Amino acid sequence: MPVALYDLVGSDTSRPFSPHCWKVRMALLHKGLAFESIPTTFTAIPAIENGASSIVPVIRDGDAVVSDSFAIAEYLERAYPDRPTLFGGEGGQASARFVEAYANGMLHPLIAACAVPDIHDMLGPADQAYCRQSREKRFGQRLEALRDGRAEAREALGARLGVVRDVLKRQPFLGGEAPLFADYIVFSALQWARVTTSFKILAVDDPVLAWFERCLDLHGGAGRSVSEAPDREAA
Amino acid sequence: MPVALYDLVGSDTSRPFSPHCWKVRMALLHKGLAFESIPTTFTAIPAIENGASSIVPVIRDGDAVVSDSFAIAEYLERAYPDRPTLFGGEGGQASARFVEAYANGMLHPLIAACAVPDIHDMLGPADQAYCRQSREKRFGQRLEALRDGRAEAREALGARLGVVRDVLKRQPFLGGEAPLFADYIVFSALQWARVTTSFKILAVDDPVLAWFERCLDLHGGAGRSVSEAPDREAA
Repeated sequence: MPVALYDLVGSDTSRPFSPHCWKVRMALLHKGLAFESIPTTFTAIPAIENGASSIVPVIRDGDAVVSDSFAIAEYLERAYPDRPTLFGGEGGQASARFVEAYANGMLHPLIAACAVPDIHDMLGPADQAYCRQSREKRFGQRLEALRDGRAEAREALGARLGVVRDVLKRQPFLGGEAPLFADYIVFSALQWARVTTSFKILAVDDPVLAWFERCLDLHGGAGRSVSEAPDREAA
Repeated sequence: MPVALYDLVGSDTSRPFSPHCWKVRMALLHKGLAFESIPTTFTAIPAIENGASSIVPVIRDGDAVVSDSFAIAEYLERAYPDRPTLFGGEGGQASARFVEAYANGMLHPLIAACAVPDIHDMLGPADQAYCRQSREKRFGQRLEALRDGRAEAREALGARLGVVRDVLKRQPFLGGEAPLFADYIVFSALQWARVTTSFKILAVDDPVLAWFERCLDLHGGAGRSVSEAPDREAA
């Protein structure tokens, strides 16, 4: 039976966008495991797997139900040791926590500042209400006001991505010669922006973009199976 | 024959202070290798090992001469595979580059902004001239002016250390249950400050400080073999 992946979507159920869910999708592909994506809206999360989790991603693999992207990656590594490794050993697993902390703490807030107004517009009515209330509380301002600060957020993001840029001078992937979960962590943060907003967060000549494109090509171009967000203003 | 470590010092040759040299010192201790520290001033670097390197650290191990802290760690891992691992596997080695890029790009400039005026004061006359010229060019201001911005640099540093703080919520070391080279990378950045300036860059209740103290205890308290920088203003 394929692994079930509860995957966050908006009103278009064919466009999963959560960075945390994308990490798990890429991890499942990396392990070569068959899986079925179950489109899940924000307000539907409490009902999945009899209330197993307040967050997505959640996977069900046989009798195992696991939530939290890193916990899922650890589960997959433990459960499928003969499949391609996600961490490249214990040191890689410990250090992937470092990459996760960097992505969550330094990238996500700035990407959210660029993308949240567009994410709001992708959602159905009940999820829109949830999104507006929770995100306006988090950012301390109206969603509409966030748009005015996008260029500044992008500039700060470009500086913080210097860490990734520096690593990519030496090796094609954060995992070394080939991608590991560390790559999927940062990839998924940028994929979140790609799928939700037409506001481009990376400069066309940024080496981080070249790496991101390499990641989009992985596993049969899985990252490209969801198209770039359309330009809403031009539409 | 013990490994020779060319180790950066100022006018007091018993106080090595370079973060890059500290990484190698900790790596040699981690591997349990006997080594001899050769105190080296900035202006003496071009003469070591017949001009082998324009930077320290440099090690000589038998016939091998290696410079650059990460290259040295890689050399030690390769040359002494039966000794305790510095990376915990290939994934850990690749990810240690990420931690290095974070430390070099996000921590070092702010620590330098806090410490460089005091580093200058530790040096002999020839090294002082080199330090003033190169660092004033890098920072675009007089060394004396840097002191005025120290509180601001410390505040920014505290925010950037959120990445480390976040990892330490889950595990006692960046390497997991035990330290790896990733720990020594960040440790050595903070040790650089500890040895060179009495300006405290970490709050007393910062979990990063508790981890730093754990690192100072490692390998027989090797990090404590050089005392904290004295308070020059109080002296």
